[in-house]
Formats: sequence, structure tokens, C-alpha cells
Amino acid sequence: MISGVGTATSGVIALLTDFGTSDGYVGIMKGVILGIHPKATLVDLTHEIQPQDVREAAFVLHTAHRYFPARTVHLAVVDPGVGTARAGVVLDTGDALFVAPDNGLLTYLLAQGRSLPTREGPLRDLNHLVPAPIPPGWKAVSITESGFWLPSPSRTFHGRDIFAPVAAHLSKGQPVDNFGPRLDTLLSFELPVPKRLERGGVEGAVVHVDRFGNLITSIRLEDLPGGRSVVEVAGRYTIDGLRGTYAEGTGLTALVGSSGYLEVALPGGSAGMATGLGVGAVVRVRPTG
Amino acid sequence: MISGVGTATSGVIALLTDFGTSDGYVGIMKGVILGIHPKATLVDLTHEIQPQDVREAAFVLHTAHRYFPARTVHLAVVDPGVGTARAGVVLDTGDALFVAPDNGLLTYLLAQGRSLPTREGPLRDLNHLVPAPIPPGWKAVSITESGFWLPSPSRTFHGRDIFAPVAAHLSKGQPVDNFGPRLDTLLSFELPVPKRLERGGVEGAVVHVDRFGNLITSIRLEDLPGGRSVVEVAGRYTIDGLRGTYAEGTGLTALVGSSGYLEVALPGGSAGMATGLGVGAVVRVRPTG
Amino acid sequence: MISGVGTATSGVIALLTDFGTSDGYVGIMKGVILGIHPKATLVDLTHEIQPQDVREAAFVLHTAHRYFPARTVHLAVVDPGVGTARAGVVLDTGDALFVAPDNGLLTYLLAQGRSLPTREGPLRDLNHLVPAPIPPGWKAVSITESGFWLPSPSRTFHGRDIFAPVAAHLSKGQPVDNFGPRLDTLLSFELPVPKRLERGGVEGAVVHVDRFGNLITSIRLEDLPGGRSVVEVAGRYTIDGLRGTYAEGTGLTALVGSSGYLEVALPGGSAGMATGLGVGAVVRVRPTG
Repeated sequence: MISGVGTATSGVIALLTDFGTSDGYVGIMKGVILGIHPKATLVDLTHEIQPQDVREAAFVLHTAHRYFPARTVHLAVVDPGVGTARAGVVLDTGDALFVAPDNGLLTYLLAQGRSLPTREGPLRDLNHLVPAPIPPGWKAVSITESGFWLPSPSRTFHGRDIFAPVAAHLSKGQPVDNFGPRLDTLLSFELPVPKRLERGGVEGAVVHVDRFGNLITSIRLEDLPGGRSVVEVAGRYTIDGLRGTYAEGTGLTALVGSSGYLEVALPGGSAGMATGLGVGAVVRVRPTG
Repeated sequence: MISGVGTATSGVIALLTDFGTSDGYVGIMKGVILGIHPKATLVDLTHEIQPQDVREAAFVLHTAHRYFPARTVHLAVVDPGVGTARAGVVLDTGDALFVAPDNGLLTYLLAQGRSLPTREGPLRDLNHLVPAPIPPGWKAVSITESGFWLPSPSRTFHGRDIFAPVAAHLSKGQPVDNFGPRLDTLLSFELPVPKRLERGGVEGAVVHVDRFGNLITSIRLEDLPGGRSVVEVAGRYTIDGLRGTYAEGTGLTALVGSSGYLEVALPGGSAGMATGLGVGAVVRVRPTG
Repeated sequence: MISGVGTATSGVIALLTDFGTSDGYVGIMKGVILGIHPKATLVDLTHEIQPQDVREAAFVLHTAHRYFPARTVHLAVVDPGVGTARAGVVLDTGDALFVAPDNGLLTYLLAQGRSLPTREGPLRDLNHLVPAPIPPGWKAVSITESGFWLPSPSRTFHGRDIFAPVAAHLSKGQPVDNFGPRLDTLLSFELPVPKRLERGGVEGAVVHVDRFGNLITSIRLEDLPGGRSVVEVAGRYTIDGLRGTYAEGTGLTALVGSSGYLEVALPGGSAGMATGLGVGAVVRVRPTG
């Protein structure tokens, strides 16, 4: 493992966008990157984030980035405010580098770095962004040095004209501070931390629905009460106990998934489709012991 | 062509899953691989296998793998039994290497190696798996050596925690036998071989519907009667003769597709949509000469 | 920038098809390429072109290719006439190389080279193809030298058997003229050039609808009247003035998108879904100053 802020990169650039793959927008970004850094290794994290869903993008980025080689550059573009005054940023955590608009996309990362204001209760509007301090030992800059951009950037496709070339130069070894001035804070949404209930119970919400229809919640393994428990989903479904694998369950099944979050699954089917529930649905775990 | 069991690999790792591309699961597997084998060349075969459809995955793997460089590692994860007692395996055919759960995914490959029990008649349930012997000169091992896995593997994402790191180490040159003990058999579903009808006719079934709506059957070029024939689809449609190309046909068209199987197509449209038929539909070819 | 017809390539091969990603067809083409040219860098432009929609493919190829490294090989396979007498071609523009069927896919490129017959008014049938001369300094050949193909090519999957291996050999350095005899013309559809209206107005049509539902028209920045204007969409919607970014608009919004074409967007929604309009819809811009 290479470590330390500002050292060499892995040469890997992982891309996350809401561009889909039907229009060539992602391919164009890769073309731009390879023109600057022909030896970069490009990996698609996903391009199927729901259009402009910064919260979903932030969750996926957070669960995925730790599995990449140290000092991978993560290029994340879900950017409803493209062309407005919102800033573009480079964040260097020592372990990884991120290039993204400053619109909440890096919220979960800042939470790992323990600098984030959190809040119990229901999910709030994504327009409700608050400044979160950069954790000690990390570094963030505002992307302002246009010498690293494509000439004459458009106002509607910064992914191509600004973020892709910055990621390419960064991966190729350009120091973070060359892209613009230091920032003390990044904009974040308030992270929905599970709410403590009486007798060790806990309340959270669905934060992501995956391709299998699994309802992934904000409740982590360490939030769960010990011993036997029941899981209540949206006040409508009650699941008795947690399972260890999808195959062990019949009907709606609760288990701690591969990212460490409680999820509700329907083995052989889709919990999302079967229940009609999605992001925001309230999930409670109560001890029965 | 490099050949022989146990020699070097092509450095290519081809991935086939039912994970879709919306959640980052595939990107995460690639991150894991590149952390172990940074010079691997990663190719997506497909990630759009219908969730948990082992039969479809087995068909696509079989038609595709022969077009990859010799000694490519094929990483195939369609794994409804993840976390249960089902084994993970490495199969080395000399020409290619496969990393997969032992759940029927390698069925068609074993058929190429001539070791498979086959069966005439309709498709049977995928739970009906039978042990098939490893063909002579091939090698299979059970994945048990946890030193090649990620630490503390989850019970719900072996693709990330076990199969991806094993594929990376294998592609990097780790000998097959280092991953676990030898196996004499792999679990397979019974392959639907076409049934002989009177006067040289043949009966098979649709085994795959592709993106163009082409209904691909279990009937191979070599199964077809010589001379003129008619194709009966689900007892409802009759097609007079076979064509050589999609463009030659009008209305429902029968032809031997690029993988050597009889398929039913609708030029300019989708045979699957137009007929409402899918996997399992019976197709008969009768000579008319 | 490397330039000049016939010099080395970038080693990048960009793929555009209508194959989708569910069947393994694209993965197979990549397997074939890597078997011939293991060091090629493969980039997906898109595989989600509507099946057999040559016009959409031509538009995407045209807006994307200029962002790739100089002398990238663009492998474009949208091929309703596969297996018929239609030719396969290699086109070398000096800046880039294209491997494709001769069915109109390269129409916009020829327009850049100024050799294309254009036509005002509504979009015409894609069967209406006309020969367009190869621009001066460019080079095109018909793909006839079967020594570069896979043995025994199928009649239904030239992408795998002919175009992929040709692209691989071309990217690896094989001179263009080795693939077959020179061509003086390529088949093109007539490009819908905007029609001049009275007082500096202009009329065009929607030529592409992207993933965000943006209606992208044939009207370029340089076609627009100066000063204030209104945009009429399909005679049913009137938009007052153009905006600079998506975020500036409320309701249906007109702006010049990142490829230099006028588009109609619905910030926070889909203009295509909201209006029910698609390719072919007439758009007029009239000055109001």
C-alpha cells in the first residue's frame, strides 16, 4: 500500500456518473482522459445512478471506494448544478483521491473522517446542504486552474471539459494543490444516523435500493441490539430475526449485507417490488429477548 | 496459442454476472482484482444475466469463451446460493480457466468436454443438478484456501470477497492446485439435447432470447435434417425453410445464428415480443423434401 | 497530436454498437480483438443505440469521436444488412480511423469533411442512401481481404468475424490499403440541414433524445439568429429565449448543448417524456428583437 497525502497514484481512475451508457457521454470522458493519460486504467463503478440523485451516488461511492487500490482517483459526476456557481473539488484522503462537484457527493466520505454533522430522523431535502470541515490530515482544493481543463469549456458538460481532464492530470501525478486554492469545508447533506429507541431498539431508513430489489438501510451492524429481535418495515411488515444469507430466508428477510448495513431482501424476488417501498421508508429493529 | 493445463495465463479476466451495472458491485470486484493484479486486462462479458438465471449464464458463457485469448480467466458469478454450503470452483480446461460457484454454471463447458449427462425433452428445474465428471486432461479444484480471499469474507458477496481475489491470483500465475483440493465432478443441469423425430426431424427448445428478440434454440446446425424443411414454433407458427441472413427474411425467419444454433428472428422487429414466446418454447424442424 | 494518413495509431479502439450488453456479443468482440492485439485499450462509446438505428449511431459517433486521442480506431457496428451485399469499410481521416458497414454510419463525418449532399426539410427514410465522395486527403477502402478475418465468418455476426479483427489489425499498425481496394464514395443519408426562415429564423428537427430526455436538434449554434428569440417546438410549445445552463431554466428550456446543437430540456425532468416528442419533431427559432 502506497500511502500519505500527495504521493503517487495507482493509475486507476474509477468513474461514477448518472449519464447512463446510451449517449456516449461516458465514452467521451474516457476519450478525454486517455488523450491526457494514455496509461490510465479506467474502471466503471456505475453510470446508472438515478438522474441527479446525489444521495444515491454518495452512498454507492462510499461503499465502493475502499475496495479499489490505494490512491485510486474516483471521478464522480452527478451534477444537477452544472454551469452554476457550485464549485468543483479535489479531495485527497491519503488513501484515495476524489474529483467531483461540491454538492454533497462526498458526504459519506467525510462521515468516515468523522467531520460530519449528523441528524436523527427522516431524510431531508438534498437542497439542504451544510458545510462540513475537512478532516485532519486530508486535503481539499477548489478546481479553478483552467489550464488543466479542455479549452473553452461548455456550461453543460463539465464532466467532459473540467472533471475528466482534472482526473487525468491528477492520476498522472499532478499535485493536488496545483488545481486551485485550499478549502476548509465541503458541502454535505446531513447523514441520517439511526435513532436510538427504548430498550436498545433502533430506527433508520432505506437509503438505497439495489438491482436485486434489496432495501438497504442506514442501520449498521454496530447499531443493532444484541440478542433476538424483530424488524419492522414501514410499520407494515414484521420480520422475525436476522438471517446470515439470502438463501436462508423465506419471504421478506432481514440480514446485514456485504457493506455492513441492515437490508431487507426477498430471496428469489425483489423486496422493493413486493413491498412498493423505496428510499426513505422507515425501518425499526426492536429486541425481543 | 498457449496451451496445456497449468501454464501461464493471457492476463485477460472476463467477467460475467447477474449484478447489473447500477449498484457498483461489478466495479467493486474490478477494484479488488486490480489491487491484487494491477496489469490484468478486464473485459465485461455481460452483467445483465436475469437475476439468478444460472441456465442463461451457462449458455452465454459457453458461446462466448472460445473467442477470448487462450488461457483467459473467466470469472462467472450468478450465485443464488451464496453463503450456503455450495462450493466455489476453479476449472482449467487447458484452453481456458473458470472461477465460479459450483451450481451448474459450467454445464455447457462440460458438455463440450463430452462428460455430461444429457436428456431429451423439456427443460427441467434448475434445482435438479447432477454430478458430471471432469473430462480427461481437465482439472478442477474446490476453492477452500482462504489465504487468497479478502479477510473476513461476507456471507452475501462472495463475488467480491472470494471469487474476484481468486481470479486475480489465478490470472497472475498462481497454480490451480493452490486454491484447494481436486474435485472429480462438478454439478450440472441436464443439457436439453434435441430429440429425434420421425423422418430426420428434430425437436428442441428455446434456451435464450437475445437483445434483438431472437429466439435461440437448443438445435445445432448438425442436428438439422438435410434438404428443405419447415420450422414449427410452439405449435403456433410455421416457417417455410431456413434463411442465410436476417435481411433475407420477411416475417418470422429461421436461420442458424452466429453460435451455430437454430434461431427464430423477426427482421426489423423482435420475434420474442411478436410471439410472446421465451425460454422453454418447443421448436420442431421437419423435412419436407 | 500525431497526424497524417497512414501513420501509427493511438492503440485505443472505441466501440459503438446496437448490441446491448446483455448477450455477451460486445464481450465476444473484445475477446477477438485482444487475441490479435493484446495491448489495445478498449473503450465503450455506447452499445445502447436503438436496434438498427443507423441515424442515431451516426450522430453519436460524430459528436464523440473528436474527444478521443488522435488516430483512435472507432469500431462502429449497427448493421441491419449484415450478410447481404453491403460492403464493410475502413475510413482514415488522418485524425481518426473508422471501421464500419457502408450504410450511412459515417454520414456526419463526411459532412465535417464537407463532401456531403445535404437537404432542407424533414428527415428522410434511412433506405434513401446516396453516394458521397471521400473528402480530399482522406482515404477509404472496402474490406475484402479475408486473411484478416476470423476463419469461416458467419453471415449474421460480422462484428465478431470481420469488423473486430480488422479493427484489431488496423490498431496494431496494419496499413489501411492492406484491407482492400480504394473507394471513391461512401453511402450516406442526406443530412438534415436547418432551413432558413424569414427574418433570420431557422427550422430544424430533433435528431437525438438522450438519457436525460433532452431533445437534441439539427440546429447548430451558428445557425441561430442573433438577439432575442423564441423557440417553437412541434408547433405546440413556445419557449422564450435561450438559457446558458440547465439549472437556469424552469419548465421547458432551450439551450445550446455541449456538442454545439440547440436542445430542448426540462430541468429536473425529461423533455422527451413530458412532451411525448422524439426524433423528427420540428423545431423553429424565430427572432423577436
